[in-house]
Amino acid sequence: MRTVLAFIALTSTTLAADPLPSWNDGPAKSAITEFVEKVTTEGSADFVPPAQRIATFDNDGCLWSEQPLYFQLAFALDRVKALAPDHPEWKHQQPFKGVLEGDLKAVIAGGEKSLLEIIAATHAGNTTEEFAAIVTDWITTAKHPQTGKRYSEMVYQPMLELLAYLRASGFKTFIVSGGGIEFMRPWAERVYGIPPEQVVGSSIKTKYEVRDGKPVIARLPEINFIDDKAGKPVGIHQHIGRRPIFAAGNSDGDFQMLEWTTSGDGLRFGLIVHHDDGDREWAYDRDSHIGQLKRGLDEGPQRGWTIISMQRDWNAIWPEQ
Amino acid sequence: MRTVLAFIALTSTTLAADPLPSWNDGPAKSAITEFVEKVTTEGSADFVPPAQRIATFDNDGCLWSEQPLYFQLAFALDRVKALAPDHPEWKHQQPFKGVLEGDLKAVIAGGEKSLLEIIAATHAGNTTEEFAAIVTDWITTAKHPQTGKRYSEMVYQPMLELLAYLRASGFKTFIVSGGGIEFMRPWAERVYGIPPEQVVGSSIKTKYEVRDGKPVIARLPEINFIDDKAGKPVGIHQHIGRRPIFAAGNSDGDFQMLEWTTSGDGLRFGLIVHHDDGDREWAYDRDSHIGQLKRGLDEGPQRGWTIISMQRDWNAIWPEQ
Repeated sequence: MRTVLAFIALTSTTLAADPLPSWNDGPAKSAITEFVEKVTTEGSADFVPPAQRIATFDNDGCLWSEQPLYFQLAFALDRVKALAPDHPEWKHQQPFKGVLEGDLKAVIAGGEKSLLEIIAATHAGNTTEEFAAIVTDWITTAKHPQTGKRYSEMVYQPMLELLAYLRASGFKTFIVSGGGIEFMRPWAERVYGIPPEQVVGSSIKTKYEVRDGKPVIARLPEINFIDDKAGKPVGIHQHIGRRPIFAAGNSDGDFQMLEWTTSGDGLRFGLIVHHDDGDREWAYDRDSHIGQLKRGLDEGPQRGWTIISMQRDWNAIWPEQ
Repeated sequence: MRTVLAFIALTSTTLAADPLPSWNDGPAKSAITEFVEKVTTEGSADFVPPAQRIATFDNDGCLWSEQPLYFQLAFALDRVKALAPDHPEWKHQQPFKGVLEGDLKAVIAGGEKSLLEIIAATHAGNTTEEFAAIVTDWITTAKHPQTGKRYSEMVYQPMLELLAYLRASGFKTFIVSGGGIEFMRPWAERVYGIPPEQVVGSSIKTKYEVRDGKPVIARLPEINFIDDKAGKPVGIHQHIGRRPIFAAGNSDGDFQMLEWTTSGDGLRFGLIVHHDDGDREWAYDRDSHIGQLKRGLDEGPQRGWTIISMQRDWNAIWPEQ
């Protein structure tokens, strides 16, 4: 009972103060708070019952940074280096040779086939519990080469506030990412407050088996599902089973998720994080090799989506140490 | 605030009274309540934090009846009849001919191929929203040929109480069924209090597309995932991402789910509903064509699983009208 009352007190305090202190006052912030007020005000024409307050967030470039390469790819490259002593043949074999020599161009030249070989070598061949332990170890120790921060410290402070604000307003928050579902789950709850069952992502196939009397789920070197572009509404439907009323992304990989979300009945919110702050983070959009954003910029405004300028709308990027 | 206090009051009242009135006093009921008390008592050696209190339930034969044929199959047969006027060729074509003539033996003789043809004809070729509307219409109107009840009235009252008791004790309850995920979601929230995002099941493939400017998710005539036997731990891991501490089933299709659940660290609970009440429901186990239970009966007790006798342990089967 004391816990419940403390929670109520905390929630009331949080809501009374500005729920989004890292967001500068302006049209973007107002659009968010007005939307939340409308859908949570009982008796309002736009009221949405709590069970239907589903909010989905892309991860890479939306909740945390993604430059100069997807953090999961940095993880995979680190894994190749860690596993190399057991694979002497990799010294002479692309794409592993390129990874070990720091020659990313050679890796990229191998295209999708190379990427799948790296994923098979670094993400499969173990059990789900072993893989979770490897990810946990990496996320708590590895550091970004340019910022020197741990990767999980490069999450966006304004988005953490938005997640907390939505949850305090009765929303259920989900990650819907092209990244690996099993790569995000081990730390998403600690970092974002999003439990494993609310993480949707790409996956490889797995197999249940009993090894020496001990049941395990083995990770197989075969793609199961790609949660990107038109795959995002499919992944949302598969995992959540209802259409979100709020969706946030940053690249054209999120276009269909926002389209699906905002074409439902009633009030909806589509949010795009535009990376336009080269001083504090990275600036990239139409021609980027990662997180390309073109169609969203062109069509987003006429679809009523809110384009967030990191430069203009955010007074902080990452959490203070 | 008033709502919150009312909820707390309600919860306290519920917990003070017997939370499982349709369960007869005895070892099975005691095993359940003792387990729940242990894992929810802070400071106890067996305490489990709320976030990890995951409970999974099979549906057919565990939460509702499944005789004389799976209710989803009854739905499929009804759909064949409803669609028959648009398919004059079905009069001469198995397995549809058999369905229309009530000759189920001819249907069954076609084996898995026939079943897949019926699923393709009755479960695919529409959008997810259209299919949900069809299921909702069926579940609110169709009646069981032997009991005359609506199918959703043939859910087990003791299991409804168990679901509510676990939720009041901080558990998150999931369905993990071999049945179709999209067949269960339209009514699981109303009937079981289980929201769509907590329903795991078998699925067909779907595809996102924009039709005349309107985004839809189309249902394709192709199996995506079979959530049965060794598929259940895989489905649990895919959707929930953590191992349950409580699992309930009734057939050997649930064996691996219970094995996976109860082989984790700490206190665990495996429950099997044994259909031994031919007077009030149906009596079947080792040799049944549906819901066969053999390995669970043989190995369950030594694995510490609780076998529920419907005859002995339940003083009610279905809810009173």
